Amino acid sequence: MSRPNLHVALIHHPVVNKNGDIIASAVTNLDLHDIARTSKTYGVRTFYVVTPLKDQAELVDKIVAHWVTGAGGEYNPLRREALLLIRVKGSYEDVLADIRQEENQEPITVATSARDRPSLLPFEKFKGLLDKGVPVVLALGTAWGLAETFIEQSDYVLEPLKGSTEYNHLPVRSAAAIMLDRVLGCR
Amino acid sequence: MSRPNLHVALIHHPVVNKNGDIIASAVTNLDLHDIARTSKTYGVRTFYVVTPLKDQAELVDKIVAHWVTGAGGEYNPLRREALLLIRVKGSYEDVLADIRQEENQEPITVATSARDRPSLLPFEKFKGLLDKGVPVVLALGTAWGLAETFIEQSDYVLEPLKGSTEYNHLPVRSAAAIMLDRVLGCR
Repeated sequence: MSRPNLHVALIHHPVVNKNGDIIASAVTNLDLHDIARTSKTYGVRTFYVVTPLKDQAELVDKIVAHWVTGAGGEYNPLRREALLLIRVKGSYEDVLADIRQEENQEPITVATSARDRPSLLPFEKFKGLLDKGVPVVLALGTAWGLAETFIEQSDYVLEPLKGSTEYNHLPVRSAAAIMLDRVLGCR
Repeated sequence: MSRPNLHVALIHHPVVNKNGDIIASAVTNLDLHDIARTSKTYGVRTFYVVTPLKDQAELVDKIVAHWVTGAGGEYNPLRREALLLIRVKGSYEDVLADIRQEENQEPITVATSARDRPSLLPFEKFKGLLDKGVPVVLALGTAWGLAETFIEQSDYVLEPLKGSTEYNHLPVRSAAAIMLDRVLGCR
């Protein structure tokens, strides 16, 4: 397969909290590092970090700058390479506009959720979408997951990850790693 | 398959630093949370955190206590369930002794490494080991990975994860998630 045209978007709004309220979550430093490193390993083209909060966007810029142009990048050039994938956007619309402009094509949007629901996109079909070469963006929710309003507006919802138990509360960092390995991993 | 007899050990010594020196690494809070949640999702029996440093062992005890018996567990009972899997040990020998005592059987030891080497254990054979029901312990290295002396003493070395690029620097949290999904995930 030629380099997959896959983009990852980590959504901080609209997501839900423990009580199901729609919130804007705070950025977690290790989400940036872990998902950037996994994205780099699996050949993801862009890792979008989406937050409407200005101070949070500034925090992401600061972390990325430390590793891309600052002391961090000298200390660990491999980390630099990974964090170079990050772009901060204020909304998902901005992400889609960015991909549209770069790829000259409408991206296909895939949302993720830990809940079962009708008409899910199986992993095998996800691979099929990527084989076609069209840009695909995989949206991951922070906090307690993507808001339903967000999910409804996506072209597809990926089938939820299942372990071997009823317990199903993976961190977004780990879920991202497993999803990318299932879709792009070399076996 | 009946419940797999798999145990995970996160090793903080002997591991190597960036320069290849053998060190005892510091415990990372999110390693505990992420690997505990993934372990719980995939039915791992015990998540051993191995450090010879007393202050680091105490730190782990404190974090676990907050979520298991303290305020954290009340706030988030699902997190409590996951962190209940954690046991702190001073050495890998103590881990093996613990499994031996609990299971009345000698555990099979599987080390992990990001480097290619001869006689690696493929994921399919790893599944085969688990199907036999004998206790298996999967050792993960923090920092820049397990020391060679540790790897040499293991019964098997698991084949390294490969993405779709030459870049191969996954966080241990993400590597753990991908390995457990490959071995125990429901597809």
